[in-house]
Amino acid sequence: MSNILIRRAERSDCPRMLELVHELALYEKAPSEVVISQEHFAESGFGKKPVWWAFVAEVNEAGKPPFVIGFALWYIRFSTWKGQRMYLEDLIVTEDWRGKGIGHMLFDKLISECRELGLAGMNWQVLDWNEPAIRFYRKYEGMKLSEGWLNASLDMKP
Amino acid sequence: MSNILIRRAERSDCPRMLELVHELALYEKAPSEVVISQEHFAESGFGKKPVWWAFVAEVNEAGKPPFVIGFALWYIRFSTWKGQRMYLEDLIVTEDWRGKGIGHMLFDKLISECRELGLAGMNWQVLDWNEPAIRFYRKYEGMKLSEGWLNASLDMKP
Repeated sequence: MSNILIRRAERSDCPRMLELVHELALYEKAPSEVVISQEHFAESGFGKKPVWWAFVAEVNEAGKPPFVIGFALWYIRFSTWKGQRMYLEDLIVTEDWRGKGIGHMLFDKLISECRELGLAGMNWQVLDWNEPAIRFYRKYEGMKLSEGWLNASLDMKP
Repeated sequence: MSNILIRRAERSDCPRMLELVHELALYEKAPSEVVISQEHFAESGFGKKPVWWAFVAEVNEAGKPPFVIGFALWYIRFSTWKGQRMYLEDLIVTEDWRGKGIGHMLFDKLISECRELGLAGMNWQVLDWNEPAIRFYRKYEGMKLSEGWLNASLDMKP
């Protein structure tokens, strides 16, 4: 089997990560919603004031260069009910590499990171029709799903 | 009419802000969900690494000390689709002071803050049965509500 390495994302991973973001947006039926620029993406993670952190899953096969096949990207959210938590913005494994446990390797790494940082828990969202993702998350004991909240947004006019 | 001042929150506002958090949680039918400590709340906003910022609405009436009757608390979220955005965690006006335009004063301040910080927009959540809040937000042109996302959470075991 190929050798899978879970490691912290570096600035040079950003172009490939953004490719994976586009792949997931297509699956989530919203490809035109991805409007972020390459520069803003990289600068937000690796500039003077980082606002996101990530782990990537990298495959190492004999005779080929290392290749990123998935990632988990998060930031610190602040809940006035629960305090500081990890907010998992994206957990992505490219289609050809699903079903091999790589998503769980990334998710387990997030759990250790929460512990190391002293965060009391994680939050994220999942689309209600995304059964494979819901099944994936249900494997984690104590995982809770709650309905009834609408997402609201307001874009600033330039 | 009383004199209402919208200003940046200070550390000394934290105990009163937390009272208002409890008031809102009761309205949202989840009073026991508020488990944050006074210390963690204040330290997260005013410690070495602040992760939240807020504006408070303060009433100044003749012969009485200034009193905080509402606030808007936010943090920076990072969307892999949209980039850095303001995430409005809580917008609260205490019950006796609703319907006087104070919520809009706070919300308008958030919009200016987004512009000043160069953020492309705001996001927040609203409960699907909270008609007064939904009506309030609908007054902002271009505000979008989206359904179909479930909130997921996992608490770390100590």
